[in-house]
Amino acid sequence: MEIAAGILEIAKNGSRKTRIMYLGNLSFDLLQKYLEMLVNLGLLEMRNGKETIYVATEKGREFLKDFDELQKHSEVVEAKKRTLEKSLSAEQ
Amino acid sequence: MEIAAGILEIAKNGSRKTRIMYLGNLSFDLLQKYLEMLVNLGLLEMRNGKETIYVATEKGREFLKDFDELQKHSEVVEAKKRTLEKSLSAEQ
Repeated sequence: MEIAAGILEIAKNGSRKTRIMYLGNLSFDLLQKYLEMLVNLGLLEMRNGKETIYVATEKGREFLKDFDELQKHSEVVEAKKRTLEKSLSAEQ
Repeated sequence: MEIAAGILEIAKNGSRKTRIMYLGNLSFDLLQKYLEMLVNLGLLEMRNGKETIYVATEKGREFLKDFDELQKHSEVVEAKKRTLEKSLSAEQ
């Protein structure tokens, strides 16, 4: 899920494969596998021009939005956990 | 953390030890250990009258509030995860 979100974030406004590979810090094989999967799932689309560009679809942007919200709520959960654990620790 | 929150929830408006034990589904030894800890941490207080009553302190109520928020945000996180996993599964 993190890898998929990373790729979609890089390709939000369109990106060549090589740029996704180095910004995403992914091996060629892994990138290839993910690009194929994301295109098949309708989250990413290929645009063929002088160069092939990958762009997140509307569905891909929705995925990114949900992922950002997941991250935000996860941060609140972690912060609350720390507060609660502090209340339960003797060394407060 | 869950056990502490469970005890504080039961004792929010005051409760005898036996009631906390059966509503919390706790063994006597475990309950004893937790009651002592929560009193020492200032989350719970003992009130001695005809019967001894345990009541959540202001700090204990704050703990409960934070715990409720933790639960709510955790539910959002889980729901978002399911949505995202569904987008990444072939059988959508």
